[in-house]
Amino acid sequence: MDHPREEIVRTLKAAKNVLVATHIHPDGDALGSQIAMGNILRSLGKNVFLYGEEQVSHLYRFLPGSAGIESLLPALNGFDCAIALDCGDCNRLGAALDSLLSVHPFVVVDHHVGHQEFGDLRWIAPDRASTGEMVYDLAEALGAELSYESAYCLYAAIVSDTGSFKYSSTSAETFRIAGELLRKGVKPAEVSGKLFDNFTVKRLNLMRLVLDSLQLYADDQLAIIAAPREVFLRTGTTQADAETFINYPRSLNTVKIAVFLKETEKGLVSVSLRSKGTEHDVAQVAAAFGGGGHRNAAGCKLRDTGIDEVREKLLTELLPMVTR
Amino acid sequence: MDHPREEIVRTLKAAKNVLVATHIHPDGDALGSQIAMGNILRSLGKNVFLYGEEQVSHLYRFLPGSAGIESLLPALNGFDCAIALDCGDCNRLGAALDSLLSVHPFVVVDHHVGHQEFGDLRWIAPDRASTGEMVYDLAEALGAELSYESAYCLYAAIVSDTGSFKYSSTSAETFRIAGELLRKGVKPAEVSGKLFDNFTVKRLNLMRLVLDSLQLYADDQLAIIAAPREVFLRTGTTQADAETFINYPRSLNTVKIAVFLKETEKGLVSVSLRSKGTEHDVAQVAAAFGGGGHRNAAGCKLRDTGIDEVREKLLTELLPMVTR
Repeated sequence: MDHPREEIVRTLKAAKNVLVATHIHPDGDALGSQIAMGNILRSLGKNVFLYGEEQVSHLYRFLPGSAGIESLLPALNGFDCAIALDCGDCNRLGAALDSLLSVHPFVVVDHHVGHQEFGDLRWIAPDRASTGEMVYDLAEALGAELSYESAYCLYAAIVSDTGSFKYSSTSAETFRIAGELLRKGVKPAEVSGKLFDNFTVKRLNLMRLVLDSLQLYADDQLAIIAAPREVFLRTGTTQADAETFINYPRSLNTVKIAVFLKETEKGLVSVSLRSKGTEHDVAQVAAAFGGGGHRNAAGCKLRDTGIDEVREKLLTELLPMVTR
Repeated sequence: MDHPREEIVRTLKAAKNVLVATHIHPDGDALGSQIAMGNILRSLGKNVFLYGEEQVSHLYRFLPGSAGIESLLPALNGFDCAIALDCGDCNRLGAALDSLLSVHPFVVVDHHVGHQEFGDLRWIAPDRASTGEMVYDLAEALGAELSYESAYCLYAAIVSDTGSFKYSSTSAETFRIAGELLRKGVKPAEVSGKLFDNFTVKRLNLMRLVLDSLQLYADDQLAIIAAPREVFLRTGTTQADAETFINYPRSLNTVKIAVFLKETEKGLVSVSLRSKGTEHDVAQVAAAFGGGGHRNAAGCKLRDTGIDEVREKLLTELLPMVTR
């Protein structure tokens, strides 16, 4: 049987008008992959529409081509192909889900563990560190020459989803592709500067308040930080500004499990869970609350509740894990 | 003419008893390179002595083989070769400098910009991101098979000196070598965890207090953070715990110059200065106060003074720079 990638390559070669989408609240991997895929298809003479439900976050507007992502869905009967990148679950396509899935063939390229199947043609590679790597492979297989802008976007995608080559998903293949992207003129310090040295004063204020909330349990093995609605309002920030803060409690040398509780809307608490090593599976904990993810990084959302109640519920699950 | 590396390879092949040294206050690149070089030479049948003036810091004892670094200098007439790694200036060899330099041939392998020449045979490559990369090259040129432990040490060296592939020195060659080291079994997340996830709770508390001190000037272009003596005492931390905190004000998107004032002893204020890009030369500012450094990273120490007085003095120099 064909590698699913080869089937996708044939499909993309045959298509004329392609819609490229990614998941809601898109991160660097989602946006970098989406923009680069668009450029690659355009370089092969296709008409391309980049769709995103929301405006691109100020954190990612440095990506060349990010202004080309449109939030108004066009008439979909003109498309002979759609492609969803980095989207582990069709619900993460957002409010336009049903309309988007009406385009056929609907191609799905994703690297998430626990990917929920949807679409007509799927290339799912949970062993890959980022969707950006997979788009790089597609460009090679399509025989498309990567532009500097595409290389920049894919490099940003890879750096985003590997925490700058720190996560366990980082492979020899990740490094090979990163090296090739540098040969296209990408400057690592420039991209990393944009991704990591982009704190606003508001965001640093949010970080200070969130770090002040640190609570430690079970001989400092379990760390919880929290951002109630009020701290976002007080600092003029949004959920996106808090994205990486879970890394602070996680980086404590005694900590085995780290938790970040965000009250993203009144009554809605978003939970990020991280564990280190192979001992504790936080995906199981997330699943118990209707969420999902990986062994070391998972999340869930709880409705009609508050941060204190969610903390209590999680402690009931997590304390026995770290103290047994 | 021969590449200096080839001459060094011939010299190392001919040697029987080799002393391997690095700079004082050794970092990950220094120690990783030293240990790996020792293993490589041993695998070729040499007798090797790893010399280090100080005990290895608790931050680097995770490096396999770090316990083999000896701080008691042996009789030096038994050595027919010495090699100094990652040492930009012979004074950084420490107190035993004169004894060490009595060994011939004395080989120097270093990647520092502004390297001060010393020794008999030198391979100086300021375009390389780390000395670890250069030791990898030497292993290849020597035809030595890298052990897992050596690969681990070289990977830690590279990650240390590139800030996990973020600094501008990161090259396609850096990524090629990182990929090869992964093929030897190195797990990126394991090494990065040891290097970066080593925050103590005390250190996080110090960070919170230091971030609370943030002051911004000139439309947020100039940021100053401060750690008075009292915050070190209150959190039970030392200066070493505050080492990277300058990166927080530096990471603000509006900031052009960042300053960190540390009252390391009563009446002694240590100043760290950082600038971004090519516009502002903080080495000049440091020099005006008897210090030094590079264009984008410099420092100085002021005696018989306090943090508030130092802040005022610096503002007099820095405000005209960012507002002109």
